[in-house]
Amino acid sequence: MKRTAFFISDGTGITAETLGQSLLAQFENIQFTKLTRPYIDSIDKARAMVQQIDAAAERDGARPIIFDTIVNRDIRAILDTANGFMIDIFSTFLSPLEQELSSHSSYSVGKSHSIGQHSNYMERIEAVNFALDNDDGARTHYYDKADLILVGVSRCGKTPTCLYMAMQYGIRAANYPLTEDDMERLQLPDSLKKHRDKLFGLTIDPDRLTAIRHERKPNSRYASFAQCEFEVREVENLFRRENIAFINSTHFSVEEISAKILVEKGVERRLK
Amino acid sequence: MKRTAFFISDGTGITAETLGQSLLAQFENIQFTKLTRPYIDSIDKARAMVQQIDAAAERDGARPIIFDTIVNRDIRAILDTANGFMIDIFSTFLSPLEQELSSHSSYSVGKSHSIGQHSNYMERIEAVNFALDNDDGARTHYYDKADLILVGVSRCGKTPTCLYMAMQYGIRAANYPLTEDDMERLQLPDSLKKHRDKLFGLTIDPDRLTAIRHERKPNSRYASFAQCEFEVREVENLFRRENIAFINSTHFSVEEISAKILVEKGVERRLK
Repeated sequence: MKRTAFFISDGTGITAETLGQSLLAQFENIQFTKLTRPYIDSIDKARAMVQQIDAAAERDGARPIIFDTIVNRDIRAILDTANGFMIDIFSTFLSPLEQELSSHSSYSVGKSHSIGQHSNYMERIEAVNFALDNDDGARTHYYDKADLILVGVSRCGKTPTCLYMAMQYGIRAANYPLTEDDMERLQLPDSLKKHRDKLFGLTIDPDRLTAIRHERKPNSRYASFAQCEFEVREVENLFRRENIAFINSTHFSVEEISAKILVEKGVERRLK
Repeated sequence: MKRTAFFISDGTGITAETLGQSLLAQFENIQFTKLTRPYIDSIDKARAMVQQIDAAAERDGARPIIFDTIVNRDIRAILDTANGFMIDIFSTFLSPLEQELSSHSSYSVGKSHSIGQHSNYMERIEAVNFALDNDDGARTHYYDKADLILVGVSRCGKTPTCLYMAMQYGIRAANYPLTEDDMERLQLPDSLKKHRDKLFGLTIDPDRLTAIRHERKPNSRYASFAQCEFEVREVENLFRRENIAFINSTHFSVEEISAKILVEKGVERRLK
């Protein structure tokens, strides 16, 4: 069975998309074609959307599911004429919230929504710059400014995780690759010892690591299964010996890894 | 007036957080203390949550707003006993969706949710690596593999935007800084001319640019207002002359800029 889902917004579409994805993921036996349509903020664009929705209904032989966060009543009224099953996120939740908060929402007064906030913007850019500047052990003398320092073997997912935490939460996360040198000495480098409370370990299944490294440096010793297995084993031993909390990234998304690290380390997000 | 809001989930909390943030943003006159509590996946953790909620109610003199995406009925039943105003996202929308789709959701059968998907994981990591490897004009010979190439003056927001598009959408975005050399020649560098259809321009208000550059290189000519104003003016002229679509990033969030670029260029997201 095939169905089309639309995530429609007069803004970025991120709320409609996030909620819609999460709800549709609960229906594993249905294959959805998912289409995000942001900035539907005029009568003309709404009319064009109705045509797209109706065409999808025709094609699928079933009406599309529509998740929307449109503020303007006139635009919503046009979308309502389409042959779709509407999940209207704002209208569902904002009335009860208005009652509870004894306050009118911008939605009720027809004001368009924006997620742009200046202080958050700067906080986030700073965090992204921090992750980039302190990536891959590039420098260690700013670790006192770090919220977290991720450690692990090369290519176990440290960089994407640091960048995600910076982007999503404004967290300043550095990362440091544990290389064979550190393993042979069987102890943490001095630059990390001073910041033991900020350390968090990432590990990965050796076969996944082999595949990832092979993409970067095909047929190298670095990408060999034997080398990957050796490094992962040694690093996990180091984590245990040094009492560094760690997580195996193999079966988790970057979101899941990031959320787990924040819980584990008790670090609060900086974005409001 | 002050109220506490909790975003509670047995997963990452991203859906509860995104929807909650978006709904609360509609109430501009109320100050919310926002707390995300992911991985509330046991009876004990749920009981501890109830205590936190009740304590916040006491402190604020008003019950907290609770956005939750908990799958397990027993855990939800415990949360229900707290002194909070519950917005139960899954239970609100999944019943109508089950009817529409004539299908039971994982929620109904009590299966926990996960957003980890292997193919998306690799697609996203590849995109993040692409953004990093092709950042700041570092190399130009992979531009044929790029979905997009952002151009603009140094520090106008190209890198965070490329990384966000990689992380959120799996888009492969390179970026190239237009420097004084390019401005004096008053034309695009050859490496960009070949990929004119992939180009998108970012610009920024000169005073904001001055502030950002000043953070990096205080009191330099590079960070002077005169220099920033000159570069921005020249680059905007170049964009117009060369017919390159562009956006002023000053008053938009990274999410907004990214969503606008995808719409403008008609680029489809790669993450499913």
